[in-house]
Amino acid sequence: MKKVLVIGAGRSSTSLIDYLINFAKSDEVLITVGDLDIKLAKGKCKNIAHPIEFDVNNKNQREQEVKNADVVVSMLPAHMHRIIAKDCVRFNKDMVTASYVSDEINLLNENAKNANVLLLNEVGLDPGIDHMSAKKVIDNIKFAGGKIISFKSFTGGLIAPESDNNPWNYKFTWNPRNVVLAGQGVAQYIKNNRYKYIPYNKLFERTELINIPSFGKFEGYPNRDSLSYRKIYNLEKIPTILRGTLRKTGFCKAWNTFVQLGITDDTYCIEDSEHMTYRDFINLFLVFSSNKTVETKLKHSFPFINEDNILDKIKWLGLLDQDKIGIPNATPAQILQKKLEEKWSLSSDDKDMVVMQHQFIYELNSKLFELHSSFGLIGKNNITTAMSDTVGLPVGIATKLILQNKFTLRGVKRPVYAEIYKPILNELSELGIKFIEDKKEL
Amino acid sequence: MKKVLVIGAGRSSTSLIDYLINFAKSDEVLITVGDLDIKLAKGKCKNIAHPIEFDVNNKNQREQEVKNADVVVSMLPAHMHRIIAKDCVRFNKDMVTASYVSDEINLLNENAKNANVLLLNEVGLDPGIDHMSAKKVIDNIKFAGGKIISFKSFTGGLIAPESDNNPWNYKFTWNPRNVVLAGQGVAQYIKNNRYKYIPYNKLFERTELINIPSFGKFEGYPNRDSLSYRKIYNLEKIPTILRGTLRKTGFCKAWNTFVQLGITDDTYCIEDSEHMTYRDFINLFLVFSSNKTVETKLKHSFPFINEDNILDKIKWLGLLDQDKIGIPNATPAQILQKKLEEKWSLSSDDKDMVVMQHQFIYELNSKLFELHSSFGLIGKNNITTAMSDTVGLPVGIATKLILQNKFTLRGVKRPVYAEIYKPILNELSELGIKFIEDKKEL
Repeated sequence: MKKVLVIGAGRSSTSLIDYLINFAKSDEVLITVGDLDIKLAKGKCKNIAHPIEFDVNNKNQREQEVKNADVVVSMLPAHMHRIIAKDCVRFNKDMVTASYVSDEINLLNENAKNANVLLLNEVGLDPGIDHMSAKKVIDNIKFAGGKIISFKSFTGGLIAPESDNNPWNYKFTWNPRNVVLAGQGVAQYIKNNRYKYIPYNKLFERTELINIPSFGKFEGYPNRDSLSYRKIYNLEKIPTILRGTLRKTGFCKAWNTFVQLGITDDTYCIEDSEHMTYRDFINLFLVFSSNKTVETKLKHSFPFINEDNILDKIKWLGLLDQDKIGIPNATPAQILQKKLEEKWSLSSDDKDMVVMQHQFIYELNSKLFELHSSFGLIGKNNITTAMSDTVGLPVGIATKLILQNKFTLRGVKRPVYAEIYKPILNELSELGIKFIEDKKEL
Repeated sequence: MKKVLVIGAGRSSTSLIDYLINFAKSDEVLITVGDLDIKLAKGKCKNIAHPIEFDVNNKNQREQEVKNADVVVSMLPAHMHRIIAKDCVRFNKDMVTASYVSDEINLLNENAKNANVLLLNEVGLDPGIDHMSAKKVIDNIKFAGGKIISFKSFTGGLIAPESDNNPWNYKFTWNPRNVVLAGQGVAQYIKNNRYKYIPYNKLFERTELINIPSFGKFEGYPNRDSLSYRKIYNLEKIPTILRGTLRKTGFCKAWNTFVQLGITDDTYCIEDSEHMTYRDFINLFLVFSSNKTVETKLKHSFPFINEDNILDKIKWLGLLDQDKIGIPNATPAQILQKKLEEKWSLSSDDKDMVVMQHQFIYELNSKLFELHSSFGLIGKNNITTAMSDTVGLPVGIATKLILQNKFTLRGVKRPVYAEIYKPILNELSELGIKFIEDKKEL
């Protein structure tokens, strides 16, 4: 009987564990779900999988459980994968994660190959489905003899239209802290063979409009790192490559107010933040005036907030209200996040949405083509979310295919190989995560 | 015979060593000047002081020389003071530096007191003369029964008017790297009992005009840290406190172009910077266009550069020229600094200038007063600069006073005590570093 060890039973493991349980019904597979919180593990196991209390820092237990398994799936925070990956290499077990390949994991490549072990990473949504669906198009174009001139790719985790009831057209469907800090540093990409660098203070002004059939209009802002994807996708000489994040139109311009104010800064603490009101907090960042209101100063300092009801959006969040912040020694970003979490959390009947679009321009037989490959998914409910499905299902499918010995690759890998992405994309398509291609000659 | 050990014979030690040599002529004092570069030490010693090759990491030599001295003056980079300070405490020797008290130095406070040792720091220009001259006014006002309502203090290291021949009205008279990175992070201060935080991207827009009699008009931008000076100056409840840096008027608005472009960023490297031209470099940060010039895009992206000849200032620097950068893997800040050093360096007959102004508002006998205390100094030449004098002379005077047993204070100190600042300010005044007070009732 084959055995899978899933480590981590948090929100993002829901669809993954459901998928594996379903698979276990038809095949002879034992699923063990380990979490520090045994109740959490039990809740996900539905009396089919086997829940255990699992402490990744308990060496004996960890080694024992890895030895017992055929495949290990780590849904732990990214920095905790290494300790599991080392055990997997030592005991010749394959491993699957949805996280970015870290430098530490990369160092295990040779050892993993020697141990005949596959450490498959970045097989969730983003990274994951983005790699697989993009690489499929890239490989097809190249196989036909085409030359890719431009590749842009955008992904967004958003609120479903039926649950979209606030002026920001946004709710948190993933880690709020990451959303607040998104884009800090510099965004690097290349356009028509020219490197482009966008500093954080210009990022939310330099968006582009993206239309995803059946899902609506979005705006995309560039991610920090687009350049490294040239190597990952084997597109070293491509003149244009850009990866970006999607928001509903209008979001970025309003969010830019927070960037310009400086309230997404997470590097220092505000004095006496605990007893300060949100209105005082905003006023910290505005010029002193003995008679002007915070609203007047905002309008004066940031003329763009007079457009598109941006000031109303800020007011709707309650950032100009007189309630106390209540967190001692908080950074501006922490204060902003607290208020956003009050306003942007999913309610029990809310549904989320995931959207993705790849945009290619390529030359084939002396003709120029534009190809858009897009998908969108609405969550089933606020447990089986679109985010949970799009992260968990590819991880689950990859795990199943490993158990079935379908992959010949070994070492530290991403799902950018046909052997891996083809069967996963095929099954995702059957499960409703299906890319629609739209091609035209230019 | 009393002995002084001066460690570090770089540019900033010139006036200090000259002062000590002069003192040694009249008193029985032996001055030893140690530097890794014995030639540098010899050049400063003028056959009066005793030059030695000195390696701070050579434990035996360091201990021997500290033991031999009565006072040790460290002109090393700030992070190297600790190792000297520990020896000074161990061998019961007083020590003088012009650097900020670091946390590491602060930890030596109790040990220094127990060893009857004075570790006197921040006794250069800024920190140094700023502390002494401000604290003198503060103590006078308090002694008279007054209450200080507002304290602003501005310092600038600039080019002397007679050598000011470029459109930026600026040349490097101190560490260029610090000038390029100045203001990154957030500027914190307090105005009318309201905390104010200015993010870097707004810093060079929020300047104030400062007039220094006989030295002209300047603009001041807030330093990162003004709040900690409340404790240092014993002004815990003061409603307004701000410390700032001075530039000639017009500088900040033009410099803001670089901040907004993102070219003062020192956190990442530009791909292929070595073979890129400066014009390409600027273009990296502008939107892509197949037909617009860099100049047109600059004007479009930053409308304020159409005013005050800012575009001409940028062109004058050569940042839109086609010459190659020539530094591999450089950060934007390093690339900018290279070009600035070509254009903003002091030539052999240039003179520098140091200016400082403290602005107080205080209440005394139910009346409100405004008091400005200002000084300015033009350098003698490009060796004995105003910067070298204003850093080195107070260090030299403090060293002399310690040799003469004039200070009773022990432990880690700043020169904010009358016992220290009075005699130093008196002698500085005789040497031409003299504050002019300008007081009026409001």
